[in-house]
Amino acid sequence: MTPNRINKLVVIGVGLIGGSFALDLRRAGLVDQVIGVGRSPENLQRALQLKVIDQAETDPAQAVQDADLVLLATPVGQMDAVLACIAPALPRHTIVTDAGSTKRDVAALYRKHLADSLDRCLPAHPIAGSDLSGAAAARYSLYEERKVVLCPLAETAGTTTTRIAALWQACGAHLVTLDAERHDAVFAAVSHLPHLLAFAYMNSVLDRPDANDCLRLAATGFRDFTRIAGSHPEMWRDIALANRPALLGDLQAFRHELDQLIEALQASDSAALAERFARASAARTHWGKA
Amino acid sequence: MTPNRINKLVVIGVGLIGGSFALDLRRAGLVDQVIGVGRSPENLQRALQLKVIDQAETDPAQAVQDADLVLLATPVGQMDAVLACIAPALPRHTIVTDAGSTKRDVAALYRKHLADSLDRCLPAHPIAGSDLSGAAAARYSLYEERKVVLCPLAETAGTTTTRIAALWQACGAHLVTLDAERHDAVFAAVSHLPHLLAFAYMNSVLDRPDANDCLRLAATGFRDFTRIAGSHPEMWRDIALANRPALLGDLQAFRHELDQLIEALQASDSAALAERFARASAARTHWGKA
Repeated sequence: MTPNRINKLVVIGVGLIGGSFALDLRRAGLVDQVIGVGRSPENLQRALQLKVIDQAETDPAQAVQDADLVLLATPVGQMDAVLACIAPALPRHTIVTDAGSTKRDVAALYRKHLADSLDRCLPAHPIAGSDLSGAAAARYSLYEERKVVLCPLAETAGTTTTRIAALWQACGAHLVTLDAERHDAVFAAVSHLPHLLAFAYMNSVLDRPDANDCLRLAATGFRDFTRIAGSHPEMWRDIALANRPALLGDLQAFRHELDQLIEALQASDSAALAERFARASAARTHWGKA
Repeated sequence: MTPNRINKLVVIGVGLIGGSFALDLRRAGLVDQVIGVGRSPENLQRALQLKVIDQAETDPAQAVQDADLVLLATPVGQMDAVLACIAPALPRHTIVTDAGSTKRDVAALYRKHLADSLDRCLPAHPIAGSDLSGAAAARYSLYEERKVVLCPLAETAGTTTTRIAALWQACGAHLVTLDAERHDAVFAAVSHLPHLLAFAYMNSVLDRPDANDCLRLAATGFRDFTRIAGSHPEMWRDIALANRPALLGDLQAFRHELDQLIEALQASDSAALAERFARASAARTHWGKA
């Protein structure tokens, strides 16, 4: 089914996620006009040059006039202010969705600011993160074969969900539906916790007196393990704070697992080490092959 | 300078590391005959089929007769037994080197078993790990542009070092020389610690009641962060035990860093989180570009 065309798409936060969404929809012939909104004039200028957007705007309230669809693609920490700003200016027919990495908090923000048009709101999360950011990171086919999690509110109209789903599918994405709470629990475990561990690990290396030797001799294991430590600091601060309860639980669970490993190593308990490593190794080797 | 040809190369442990070394030396025309030694007849058979080795042998003492060069490429935990076995049979002229991931313990084993021929011994560590193992993982050019750390003993003859160095260079590797203690400290930090963290993290995910949802929705961040959790369990048990003191120190340092992060998150200390993430992110983004 071909999704309805969008006359005016407003992307608030023109980076990897929002920019790549706009590029794919335009290529698919599904959007006429893309308005990019952001706080950085340099980034908006770059987005114009790269033809990710047709028009740049710094005032979100101004941008959303006549919009058919608004995608909030800023870090989650900015969404409260953005929604407060656009709410009074938003046309009644406009659909609002987002690409926030956490969903309970974003769902609460829709309720806070757009209580009268929740039928037109759909919290969503495209799983296509990267350590890259900014308009220059936007690219075609980012969402090909990727998952997009939709977390409809009880009030979200079926037509709203169908319309957004069709757009993500036009980008090549596979859809998954989860309630916001389950979403946040799963992504605390598989995304937010690894990011915090990678940041902490990287800092523990930098604290060493031989940090330079370490960085010079580090190889592919280090490269892959720390890739996500290169991620956007403010974005991850926002995510950590937004998903704080789930993430704190997972950090404690990890710490417990780590303490048991430390204990086994302190005791030179060869069998316990081998057993723990084998369990992890078998699961990781099997992962993605099922 | 073209290295001297080797009439007979004995590779004890025919996996990714030993097998790839043999493949490259043969392609370079630097070796006449490759004898593979191992405990698994299936793996040796596979190595013969893939022409990684010319001849398979299960008795190391038998294999090293007339050898010009012996490469110990087993997990470090097996090297004590292997050296004990070959020591009485080893010809006086034979050079012995290894590819062990830890170096203080291997240096001590050379002293224990080959005290009279330390001039012919060179502890070494090619930095080309992988989550793959076995003869089927061996491949050409594994060492191209990779680093190989040489840790000569005080007794190692310059001619021994020169000869081994020439072989690794013929494989395309860059050489680094470090004493065994510094080697072990650096690799505890950049390799052994990340492996233990990846194993622990993977197990903490598996312990969750929603582990299946987690594994189904995990994406590229998870994929890269956990790649090394797919590594060989016994090999990593051996490495962890062999480098226990350095690794325990690093585990404690990491745990301290993690606790500070947990504390900042518990206190919702936005500035502290952003500062820690930014430090890690800047260093990781800069890494490899210097």
